[in-house]
Amino acid sequence: MWGMIATWRMALEGITHASETLKNGGRSAKAVVSAVAEVEDFPFYKSVGYGGLPSENGEVELDAAFMDGDSLAFGAVGNLVDIANPIQVAHALSRERFNSFLVGTGAREWALSQGFAEKAMLTERAIQHYRKRCHETIDRGLSPYDGHDTVGIIGLDNHGSMSVGTSTSGLFMKRRGRLGDSPVVGSGFYCDSEIGAATATGVGEDLMKGCTSYEIVRRMEGGMAPQDAADSVVCELEDKLMARFGRVGDLSVVCMNRQGEFGAATNIQTFSFVVATRDLPATVYLAERRADRTYYTPADDQWMADYAARIRAPIGDPQYD
Amino acid sequence: MWGMIATWRMALEGITHASETLKNGGRSAKAVVSAVAEVEDFPFYKSVGYGGLPSENGEVELDAAFMDGDSLAFGAVGNLVDIANPIQVAHALSRERFNSFLVGTGAREWALSQGFAEKAMLTERAIQHYRKRCHETIDRGLSPYDGHDTVGIIGLDNHGSMSVGTSTSGLFMKRRGRLGDSPVVGSGFYCDSEIGAATATGVGEDLMKGCTSYEIVRRMEGGMAPQDAADSVVCELEDKLMARFGRVGDLSVVCMNRQGEFGAATNIQTFSFVVATRDLPATVYLAERRADRTYYTPADDQWMADYAARIRAPIGDPQYD
Repeated sequence: MWGMIATWRMALEGITHASETLKNGGRSAKAVVSAVAEVEDFPFYKSVGYGGLPSENGEVELDAAFMDGDSLAFGAVGNLVDIANPIQVAHALSRERFNSFLVGTGAREWALSQGFAEKAMLTERAIQHYRKRCHETIDRGLSPYDGHDTVGIIGLDNHGSMSVGTSTSGLFMKRRGRLGDSPVVGSGFYCDSEIGAATATGVGEDLMKGCTSYEIVRRMEGGMAPQDAADSVVCELEDKLMARFGRVGDLSVVCMNRQGEFGAATNIQTFSFVVATRDLPATVYLAERRADRTYYTPADDQWMADYAARIRAPIGDPQYD
Repeated sequence: MWGMIATWRMALEGITHASETLKNGGRSAKAVVSAVAEVEDFPFYKSVGYGGLPSENGEVELDAAFMDGDSLAFGAVGNLVDIANPIQVAHALSRERFNSFLVGTGAREWALSQGFAEKAMLTERAIQHYRKRCHETIDRGLSPYDGHDTVGIIGLDNHGSMSVGTSTSGLFMKRRGRLGDSPVVGSGFYCDSEIGAATATGVGEDLMKGCTSYEIVRRMEGGMAPQDAADSVVCELEDKLMARFGRVGDLSVVCMNRQGEFGAATNIQTFSFVVATRDLPATVYLAERRADRTYYTPADDQWMADYAARIRAPIGDPQYD
């Protein structure tokens, strides 16, 4: 059995191409890194990699992580500036015995020392988004922190190896140096080839309070079906944060076990995710929760067309605002 | 019931003073922050705060975190340079809704904007340690990465509130920008006032592979005694990493449940820790593991005297080398 699952529609092209690797007996690490890198490279995904939205200070600071489910080794980068593919740096760091989680200037220095390509990651389109948000924040009192779509991709290969990768520009308008859950093991991602893997997207500050990805994997270890593990963890975290912290942000997760069974859970209106397995061609699903259960259906052609138009629409187009 | 437990002998003075706060009905957050700050301020503790050992690049980069077990809110800083008390910055960040985990330049900018005091944290003694290690690494082939004693302090107050704080200069000779487990929720620390808290010290890269602190709290939630939770998590992580990753570094933990019962576990020869509760004056224990169980006894006067001499001995003194 082989399989891949990812947060958000944006992973579709990456998963479609990378599943060829798995279909042909290739390794999950290769599939996951190449799928995440494809999302990073696409300029119209505004929350990951090239074209990602900047921090409050106007700089694109990128976070990424990679975990190898065979060895439990992981690598992570935070606040990495102007390196083309943060996921490749995280993957390289996962092979280091020490210093495998690097942030800021140190992460950039190490990436350059290893020959990773420099690239100016701030696009003209992202600058327009940034200016618009600055105006909205001042004029209309909108929260500056709305928008935080991390790509998280899990792979299972025919050899039984699993891995997971994440990549994000983080909370839009975040403070310089802010880390969310995406580079934090146990919160944004966790992977154990003997059990399964999980990855999260949403308000990192809240996802971290529950060690969300680790807890999902732990429940799968206890025999829970992936869908039950995902739903129960998201619901319980939401309830706990409402009771204890008084509020809760967006929480969405996907997971897969070593048999290739998958689950997805969310507390938002529409959370899209992508799955491909030996038995299922790459498919975009739209998920929403009713009561304490997440339901999902394949995205139809209209939704896919609207999505394609929306991500390319001029900034400030009232039809998509 | 009130209680405090901390990693390493170095927490003794801080715990002795901060327990007065708890004894008099004060809050655990105040006790934990003041106890950690006292460790940070003491120049002869070379792995925390002022006098902490520098990174490979010769700069002292400090990590710290604080978690409030009532709300599950936490704040963390990483690679903070020349701010007197990282724990106080982490505590202030735990009150922020967003951007509560800040690293590098951004963490420093925020700390300064909030009025936290600047302080040159690199001491002449730390420079001597650094020069000595550089020579050892080149001349004797020693690992540059030996030495990583994080202070982690847990507090339980008479109101039933718990909190935890960590502070460290991280792995000695670490790469610029390296984060270990100390600022990472779930790995270096976790706290839930309805259950208990745990905190870890050792090789962060390995402690993070198992979400060590979260897993200990989770086992206490399931009804396990703190000592059993600590021992089982450390032993299982050690076995798992040997089997899957092929090696394992130092792993030491302390924990306390909401009843004030405590536990400590380690895989090293002698791990010291400090406990004070309503029923027990502040005491230094020396722990070591036999088979799959950690045993500990109070440190005697000779050990305490040797410790005091060792931390103040001239760098390179053969008696303490």
